[in-house]
Amino acid sequence: MARKTAESKGKAPVRKRAMKETAKEKEDPKVIAKKIENMAKEIVADIKKGNEPTFHTQMRGRGNVKFNEEQGLLELGDKMTSRNFLNIGHARRYMQTMLVSAKAHDYLKERKTASIREIYYELKHTLGETKENTFEDQTESDSCIVDLEHSIDSIREKLNLHANPKGTLYGDITLRDKVHNNDTFNCAKLGRGGWSVMSRIEPEEIEMKDCNAKYVLVIETAAMYERLVEEGFAKKNKAILVGTGGQAARGSRRLIHRLHVEKKLPVYVFTDGDPYGWYIYSVVKQGSMALAAHSGLLAVPDAKYIGMTLEDVEDYGLQNVTERMKDGDIKRAKEMMAYPWFQNKPWQKELKKALQQKIRIEQQALANKSLDFVATKYLPEKIKKQDFLP
Amino acid sequence: MARKTAESKGKAPVRKRAMKETAKEKEDPKVIAKKIENMAKEIVADIKKGNEPTFHTQMRGRGNVKFNEEQGLLELGDKMTSRNFLNIGHARRYMQTMLVSAKAHDYLKERKTASIREIYYELKHTLGETKENTFEDQTESDSCIVDLEHSIDSIREKLNLHANPKGTLYGDITLRDKVHNNDTFNCAKLGRGGWSVMSRIEPEEIEMKDCNAKYVLVIETAAMYERLVEEGFAKKNKAILVGTGGQAARGSRRLIHRLHVEKKLPVYVFTDGDPYGWYIYSVVKQGSMALAAHSGLLAVPDAKYIGMTLEDVEDYGLQNVTERMKDGDIKRAKEMMAYPWFQNKPWQKELKKALQQKIRIEQQALANKSLDFVATKYLPEKIKKQDFLP
Repeated sequence: MARKTAESKGKAPVRKRAMKETAKEKEDPKVIAKKIENMAKEIVADIKKGNEPTFHTQMRGRGNVKFNEEQGLLELGDKMTSRNFLNIGHARRYMQTMLVSAKAHDYLKERKTASIREIYYELKHTLGETKENTFEDQTESDSCIVDLEHSIDSIREKLNLHANPKGTLYGDITLRDKVHNNDTFNCAKLGRGGWSVMSRIEPEEIEMKDCNAKYVLVIETAAMYERLVEEGFAKKNKAILVGTGGQAARGSRRLIHRLHVEKKLPVYVFTDGDPYGWYIYSVVKQGSMALAAHSGLLAVPDAKYIGMTLEDVEDYGLQNVTERMKDGDIKRAKEMMAYPWFQNKPWQKELKKALQQKIRIEQQALANKSLDFVATKYLPEKIKKQDFLP
Repeated sequence: MARKTAESKGKAPVRKRAMKETAKEKEDPKVIAKKIENMAKEIVADIKKGNEPTFHTQMRGRGNVKFNEEQGLLELGDKMTSRNFLNIGHARRYMQTMLVSAKAHDYLKERKTASIREIYYELKHTLGETKENTFEDQTESDSCIVDLEHSIDSIREKLNLHANPKGTLYGDITLRDKVHNNDTFNCAKLGRGGWSVMSRIEPEEIEMKDCNAKYVLVIETAAMYERLVEEGFAKKNKAILVGTGGQAARGSRRLIHRLHVEKKLPVYVFTDGDPYGWYIYSVVKQGSMALAAHSGLLAVPDAKYIGMTLEDVEDYGLQNVTERMKDGDIKRAKEMMAYPWFQNKPWQKELKKALQQKIRIEQQALANKSLDFVATKYLPEKIKKQDFLP
């Protein structure tokens, strides 16, 4: 395997600080509610002073997103923006933001949680005698949620809001659901199905208790997750398996992040060898553009990429079971070559090879060797040799 | 609520036979393996006699699908078809079918299971000195799997094959995973996440033990499932909740079917009030065209539709939170009006109303009343009054 040499020669980003658990991780509902109250009090004070009520939030979009090399995270810069009540272009959004803020505050006080679709429906009504609705569609309330998250510098999960759940957890870790009869269960003892990851998995609700594992393996496809469970991989290798079922939902990202910072577990990401798989890895590792403000709660900058790689195709003779890259794949791979976080020799080599050969390789293609090959040979060998992409 | 009267006046299909557990439900791997062996032996006998080797399977497609009114199921007719080795148009498919059959037989013997993507990759190779591959893409092996299912008159799950898992289970039922350390767990004690439904949930592997519930509630959206879990709906109402996350995957359908036949639980289906929701209901209830041969193992003809309905919009004043039907919705609703299983007064009335008003209503729109409205009022009232569509 030539990569180890390539990797040690390559300039993988060397970060000075390892990721630590911060106070922000465990901000409880009272703290978050207090932040909303303070924001509201400032607005009331503005009104009393005869000033224009103004809502401040961080500026988003590429112009204010930067890659923090030292921490290995995407993050937001310092630029702020505001919604002004007396600006006719802002007034509607201002009103909506106040509605969303007040409702999220209610949820926190009442210890309720709601999906982002529910808060939209809960707040939708016709204003007074007018024919004007508070919201016309969910994109409007979603934008206000994002404004509020950025204004109080926390994630929607801590506002008791969530999107759809997705993802599965399997392995020797005991969880306790503090708000559901203190249910306490070991995620290796739920049969092969495993535990269905919740959309919100905040520490004040889900406690991570005993964990007997050496690392977290994040798996792109549900079928590969099932394969590894069936092969008894988790037990034999002391691994925690997280199946993301494609792009990792926020709940899964928060779970992986917490396993890393609270349980000090290394995170290895196992995806198809194609732009979609690389992107899944990249989001788990350094966060996404859209959620750059929250990388500190969602990302794992020390995560490693275990495969699939183009080198695997040669090493294991998988030429027969590669797929052709589509035009979209090629375009995407070219874009990725330019991303700051792929600016290191091993990744540049990998992306170049993919673009030269114009092929992609799926995780499940390893079945071409034998069904258990991935569990008995491929993954254990790679982990033993620490044969990763950075 | 006017519907009860409408429903008692309407001619909902009256079936003579309730669904019973059949021997087919529990055919174990040995029986299935034997069926494959018998098929193979016939072919060998053909060859020895100098006859053309021929593989027989049931004919599929609309021409051989019929709706069995008495049983309330979609089913296949008696038409058969064959793949003939000496027919140049059939030879490739014949070869592929033999490969898939032999490999499925291996899985059964070795007690392995595989995803349909894995069997494709496992069997893909270049034949001898030729440049001919056994399979070019997965659609080819998928077709052979379907041929084999229909040939041995059973489902792929019993051939130890499966597609991706999807769906979640929550409620007071104890499951035992016989092939995974006999893990035994109660699905109301896994925190709010619930149990992740496996892609295969056959009785010889997953045993349903004690169950303390009065009915099964099938829920279209993951967020509504989470809402009901959060509200403690399952415990208060002795309900088993199955979240399908959109169209029910085969594993979820098999689970719902088994809860119905083994635990004698009524099944209520709760979807958005739109063509996609109605279709989800229809597939849970009488099966699908594509899997008409297997309705006996997957469908629940006695299932009832609990909502959302256009009448709900009036009864609960939800006019403000309906959505406009798109052109595709309207086309689909018109098609549905003609389906044999919607030929009863209550459904015709419902579909007509939807087409007149051109609106759809989502489950989560009930949040407009209050977050807990669905759990404390909407569902309990409907169930108490048995206010369902047939």
